[in-house]
Amino acid sequence: MASHQIEITLPDGTTRNYDSGTTGKEIAESISSGLARVALSITVNGEIIDLDRPITENATIAINTWDSEDGQYTFWHSSAHLLAEAIQEMYPDAKFGIGPPIENGFYYDIDFGDKQISQDDLAAIEKKVIEVARRKATFDRKEVSKEEALTFYKEKGNEYKVDLIEGLEDGEITFYTQGNFTDLCRGPHIPNSGVVKAVKLTNLAGAYWRGDVNSKQLTRIYGITFPKQKMLEEYLHNVEEAKRRDHRKLGKELGIYMIDTMVGSGLPMWLPNGTVLRRTLEAFLRDEQVKRGYKEVITPHIGSLELYKTSGHYPYYQDSQYDPIQVDDEEYMLKPMNCPHHHRIYSSDMRSYRDLPLRLAEFGSVYRYEQSGELSGLSRVRGFTQDDAHIYCTHDQLKQEIRNTIELTQLVFSTFGMPVDIRLSFRDENDEKYGGSTEYWDRAQQEIKDVADEMELDYFIAPGEASFYGPKIDFIIRDAIGRKWQLGTVQVDYVMPERFDLTYIGSDNNKHRPVIIHRAPFGSMERFTSILIEHFAGKFPLWLSPEQIRILPISDTQNEQANEYAEILRSKGVRLTVDDRSEQIGAKIRDAETAKIPYMVIIGAKEMEAGTVSVRKHRKGDIGTFNFSDFLSRITTEISDKALPED
Amino acid sequence: MASHQIEITLPDGTTRNYDSGTTGKEIAESISSGLARVALSITVNGEIIDLDRPITENATIAINTWDSEDGQYTFWHSSAHLLAEAIQEMYPDAKFGIGPPIENGFYYDIDFGDKQISQDDLAAIEKKVIEVARRKATFDRKEVSKEEALTFYKEKGNEYKVDLIEGLEDGEITFYTQGNFTDLCRGPHIPNSGVVKAVKLTNLAGAYWRGDVNSKQLTRIYGITFPKQKMLEEYLHNVEEAKRRDHRKLGKELGIYMIDTMVGSGLPMWLPNGTVLRRTLEAFLRDEQVKRGYKEVITPHIGSLELYKTSGHYPYYQDSQYDPIQVDDEEYMLKPMNCPHHHRIYSSDMRSYRDLPLRLAEFGSVYRYEQSGELSGLSRVRGFTQDDAHIYCTHDQLKQEIRNTIELTQLVFSTFGMPVDIRLSFRDENDEKYGGSTEYWDRAQQEIKDVADEMELDYFIAPGEASFYGPKIDFIIRDAIGRKWQLGTVQVDYVMPERFDLTYIGSDNNKHRPVIIHRAPFGSMERFTSILIEHFAGKFPLWLSPEQIRILPISDTQNEQANEYAEILRSKGVRLTVDDRSEQIGAKIRDAETAKIPYMVIIGAKEMEAGTVSVRKHRKGDIGTFNFSDFLSRITTEISDKALPED
Repeated sequence: MASHQIEITLPDGTTRNYDSGTTGKEIAESISSGLARVALSITVNGEIIDLDRPITENATIAINTWDSEDGQYTFWHSSAHLLAEAIQEMYPDAKFGIGPPIENGFYYDIDFGDKQISQDDLAAIEKKVIEVARRKATFDRKEVSKEEALTFYKEKGNEYKVDLIEGLEDGEITFYTQGNFTDLCRGPHIPNSGVVKAVKLTNLAGAYWRGDVNSKQLTRIYGITFPKQKMLEEYLHNVEEAKRRDHRKLGKELGIYMIDTMVGSGLPMWLPNGTVLRRTLEAFLRDEQVKRGYKEVITPHIGSLELYKTSGHYPYYQDSQYDPIQVDDEEYMLKPMNCPHHHRIYSSDMRSYRDLPLRLAEFGSVYRYEQSGELSGLSRVRGFTQDDAHIYCTHDQLKQEIRNTIELTQLVFSTFGMPVDIRLSFRDENDEKYGGSTEYWDRAQQEIKDVADEMELDYFIAPGEASFYGPKIDFIIRDAIGRKWQLGTVQVDYVMPERFDLTYIGSDNNKHRPVIIHRAPFGSMERFTSILIEHFAGKFPLWLSPEQIRILPISDTQNEQANEYAEILRSKGVRLTVDDRSEQIGAKIRDAETAKIPYMVIIGAKEMEAGTVSVRKHRKGDIGTFNFSDFLSRITTEISDKALPED
Repeated sequence: MASHQIEITLPDGTTRNYDSGTTGKEIAESISSGLARVALSITVNGEIIDLDRPITENATIAINTWDSEDGQYTFWHSSAHLLAEAIQEMYPDAKFGIGPPIENGFYYDIDFGDKQISQDDLAAIEKKVIEVARRKATFDRKEVSKEEALTFYKEKGNEYKVDLIEGLEDGEITFYTQGNFTDLCRGPHIPNSGVVKAVKLTNLAGAYWRGDVNSKQLTRIYGITFPKQKMLEEYLHNVEEAKRRDHRKLGKELGIYMIDTMVGSGLPMWLPNGTVLRRTLEAFLRDEQVKRGYKEVITPHIGSLELYKTSGHYPYYQDSQYDPIQVDDEEYMLKPMNCPHHHRIYSSDMRSYRDLPLRLAEFGSVYRYEQSGELSGLSRVRGFTQDDAHIYCTHDQLKQEIRNTIELTQLVFSTFGMPVDIRLSFRDENDEKYGGSTEYWDRAQQEIKDVADEMELDYFIAPGEASFYGPKIDFIIRDAIGRKWQLGTVQVDYVMPERFDLTYIGSDNNKHRPVIIHRAPFGSMERFTSILIEHFAGKFPLWLSPEQIRILPISDTQNEQANEYAEILRSKGVRLTVDDRSEQIGAKIRDAETAKIPYMVIIGAKEMEAGTVSVRKHRKGDIGTFNFSDFLSRITTEISDKALPED
């Protein structure tokens, strides 16, 4: 074939022309030599491939470095091969099963034969992995016939790879070789093993071959690798931090929530402290919403099946829904979402263009089935409350409303000191699953992009990530230890207005379809609270703390004064208790520290005489003596400012 | 039989001795001649009988006058006979079916043969009823054999009474005769028809004999009678008032709630104005509860069937429960009450006597099945939210906690200007259905009575009205048009602590059972709101009004000033809108009146110049010109005082 030109679209939307057969490495070099140096793989039309594979058609591409998920995927995939190579050298009889990359690192399932491998062996293996990596071997791809592949592994006596190959089509089988190690593998891999600078083998577990309990149990070794030793140290530190901050542990210690199997799996009950926290979050958002013209509604927790047939969620999402309940001759379902209820409120009255935008908000509890193995604390549950809202507006109002919802969402996360990445999830133009007219899609996507540009947002566009009923904006927050969580979503919807036959009378006296924005900054009160607990490690900002102040009289003599101060603080809306037990002050302080109370107010004989209070901050200790009125104004200002904790 | 003495217990608990065979009339006379004059019947051990029937055994009795339900029951039962007598005179061929007393009045089902009776005939019949009543006939009881009774009605050709008699046992059949009219009837009746002074036949309807559509359709005439003409006038006035105040009509007009069959029967959705009202009620109660040491929790809307098997509510109350939902290998139910969830929170931690009382509160939504014919607006629904709380305390704390709950309940109702009757619902000592130890029951009943006496409550004791698990205090409020509604209940519970094995560690280091108080001042947010709407006829006190103020600029020139005032009011938490439409001021005022906005603030050129506002009150009109700051302080005071409307 004669060489021809192909058009390559880069992540920023610009296009460049290359000769057909150009490789990812060449494209990287044409962009910058710095990029080429750190490139790990290339994603071509959604598929990650080796940097040295030729590209022969027009494509949207991304050069993957360590900083991208696709880059880490490649890095850890290759690291699994390095682990296998190291083990092959140390245990020549070891037979290898599968070794995929996972969310954090990779694993390999290995049959060590008679050898027993224990936690104690991992350090030596880690050392060998680094030794192997330093050889800077390339990962060489080779297409092999099924015949050839089977012969290779039969000779090695590896029944696992044979089993895998038997399930593959001839013509689609590839081997990758680095150094002395060859593996059955689809790829892709990094160009050179030398970039793997640090490794930690994190865990050892048993795993049945193909997950079948009747098959042989292999040894699964989990590991994670990094391009820098410092990154590994940070990672291990963050793993420890994550354990320390685990909301399931802190949630119990701080009286935030409980789960009781007699009540039900995945059905958290909010304990008193958690309820204060949640009500405070709700009040914060409610106030902001009222200022922005939202109107709150309350709808029931069940709905007739008709609603979900109309929306199309039944029977298509049955896997995540509870079974219907028969009531007389009707069927009802625990509501999996609030949308249909709100749409029916919209259509309960004649709406004019003058009534729009109509912004209906609800802290709406929904129930979705999750497998019991998936349930976890407040973060994966079967019943949760969304800070839901639906904005019904005209197409001309859409842009301004999108801007308003983005601003509100940003305000919410900045209040908690959480940096946000913004993803514009657009449709894939080549995919036909998307509902609504192309004209509206294009217009909405353009408007979303325009708003993002006008607001100077730091965003990225993800084609193909839109919901089927419209483009959306996803907010991915980073918590205090760098973990990312996808939270609030702003979602444009052209489909439900049709399905629920929603209309408004325009200024032309004709009926028109409104467009809907679905949005929920917190997403779920449960999941958001789990993230808040871990983000703040339980040391909430003062305005969120269930108990903001504890007053500690040193002896009974100061109890009356303590209660007087308490009354004044309470009248200002401060949440506090007085610890008037007959305990030593040291014990009272210790208990308040354990409960992570932000401020302790100590009153002894000296303070009573001087009309002052001694103040301690959680984990900071004594911060000095204050006139009570100065302390009061400090506290109320800190609360009304929603100030973040200092550390 | 020789005459012997019987012991008669009066409603106030005192006892008197009488000769066996003494009649109700004689007992009434022995108490006071005034009472005897107005006595209508007597209730003997729960059964209402004629005043001239002999009493031959020890009994608890009440002499029934017009002021008691049993008295009205007797009055209206006799009135049905008077209606029949009047119709017999006017339409000699009429054949009578059944004619019972009902909640308000009575009806009689009559076969008029070929005669067509219409609404127009009712006035003449009313006149005849009064004419018949004025004859002051006595109602004479006669025991008849089945044979005799059948012969009597066969001769009259009345197949309906024959049908009824055939279903009766010989020996239990009685006739009552007043004047020329004799009826098959169990009684009881008033002594003399002369007390019936006023009658209104309220409705005419078709009714199948025995409710069977294959039987003949009779004419049902509804009526109500009174001992005074003035009472009838009041009644008719109140019927009109009740129609005008109907919460189903006002609820729609004021945007409080909607019911949509596509969402579900009996499942109200709270519209924006209703949500503001409800949130304001919740905040009011929450604040009062926090002051009193309650702790709020939030629990899911479903629970494992285990909870209700443990409480004993399943399968025994299945009629009012939704069918269970299968989830994996467990069964769940929409929760019919919040109690079991709270009990599980209690038992999730070790409790010491120092932790008690523990007061767990929740605005908890529950679901109970009602037949579709029973559903009505917000007052009879299938899903509702209770302002629930459970107080776990020691037996020694019970009295004080009962007092606290009564005080809170009284505060709630007095805030809405609703007078309260208090019923102490105690157990019937002769009934064995009651759970828990007799010692605790007696002690709790005594303590409830002591508290009621100490608080100088105007209460009455209702033996046999207790729940099976403990004595309770019922609050019966009277609304603005005199209707009674049973609302808040305070309920002592000895049974659930056993069933859920709740314990606390006492100061003796041993385990003890706490006692539980269940209480809910509003009862249900839905039903209470329906009562509030009707009580206030939609003209809520300012603090409860969804829209408290509407600012009406006379022309566009004042819009900016209007918005400035609006900002100031909003910053004080006042709920308002600015009507800046280009409409005439008259139209703006009319719309605000229709929406029952308490205050209208009018700003014209004159006001702007003078820095004042003209203020109108709903239905009162202009109340004068105010400096804005004076108006602001008037409004915020009225809100924080929770002042009741002036009219």
